[in-house]
Amino acid sequence: MGKVKVDHSLFCLPWTQTLLGTHLDGKINFMALDWLTRVNYSPAMLGICVNKMNASNKAIRETGEFSVNVPSEDMVEITDYCGIVSGSKVDKSGLFEVYYGELKAAPMIVSCPVNIECKVTQTLELPTNSFFVGEIMNVFSGEEYITDGKPDVEKMKPFLLTMPDNRFWSIGKNIGRAWKDGSRYRDKLKGG
Amino acid sequence: MGKVKVDHSLFCLPWTQTLLGTHLDGKINFMALDWLTRVNYSPAMLGICVNKMNASNKAIRETGEFSVNVPSEDMVEITDYCGIVSGSKVDKSGLFEVYYGELKAAPMIVSCPVNIECKVTQTLELPTNSFFVGEIMNVFSGEEYITDGKPDVEKMKPFLLTMPDNRFWSIGKNIGRAWKDGSRYRDKLKGG
Repeated sequence: MGKVKVDHSLFCLPWTQTLLGTHLDGKINFMALDWLTRVNYSPAMLGICVNKMNASNKAIRETGEFSVNVPSEDMVEITDYCGIVSGSKVDKSGLFEVYYGELKAAPMIVSCPVNIECKVTQTLELPTNSFFVGEIMNVFSGEEYITDGKPDVEKMKPFLLTMPDNRFWSIGKNIGRAWKDGSRYRDKLKGG
Repeated sequence: MGKVKVDHSLFCLPWTQTLLGTHLDGKINFMALDWLTRVNYSPAMLGICVNKMNASNKAIRETGEFSVNVPSEDMVEITDYCGIVSGSKVDKSGLFEVYYGELKAAPMIVSCPVNIECKVTQTLELPTNSFFVGEIMNVFSGEEYITDGKPDVEKMKPFLLTMPDNRFWSIGKNIGRAWKDGSRYRDKLKGG
């Protein structure tokens, strides 16, 4: 079978790269964020994982609010920069033009194709990280990224991170339709 | 600025497509799973979001164990099939050749390039979904997918899902290096 154990600190799934926006001691701050997922269908909720040593962890605790911003391929360098320098040492408040939705401490980046503002509803404390669950209050996008009323990944051009090889990846080709391609497989099973 | 509100039930980030493996009433079961993330650095922990109506939710409650399997591009149809039919109605136990690591109720799929076995440590109950946090006990990969000791995304060929357009995507080109490209930006800031 040829299966071998590999580093069990798995980072090898591609994660969509985002930028986490907070207010840190009253000042706008951003950090690179990869560990996040939807956690509830209705209402729409997003969960994000932030190391307890990160300044953003303290920021979210204080305000109970955050934004998730999805950068495009042409923002690789500035996004990675936000992951390299800590908000406790470097002022990142002037890096981006920002705007606000209905929350006061969830700054959103104008140049990112998609912006999400969240209000914390639960916090799960884990050994080294906090998992903040936030209700999605609003999602914003630029009109230029929208097709048929929905943000279009081919226009947004988000990018991915894999670890521990630490590489960024573009999104590739459309290779199928969900909730559709599986019905072909079902038909084959029935036919067989 | 041209920002508009879009469907706030955001699905538009690309998620890596996986297959969740469980034992349902003693029988092997799989479902398509997209909502998952790392939730702790050390020890390595993974969080997965499963709707309370899914048979897999009940399965994980009963056994406290699950597997996450990362299919490759050539498995689009069978993966999507696992998301279309419910384990409460259709027996999916014979779909894949499976193997086990150290857990008894975390069946892993031989044909998937990466398999992860997890033991539940916490469960966060949300309105429509449960968020199961599992400690990663082991990660397995086929030797043919490994480069320099690590699973290699270019060999694994995982794929992504975007919603609500419901499209599957391949991984594209390598467009940068994390914790490296940002230092170029830092140099520019210093230079300026």
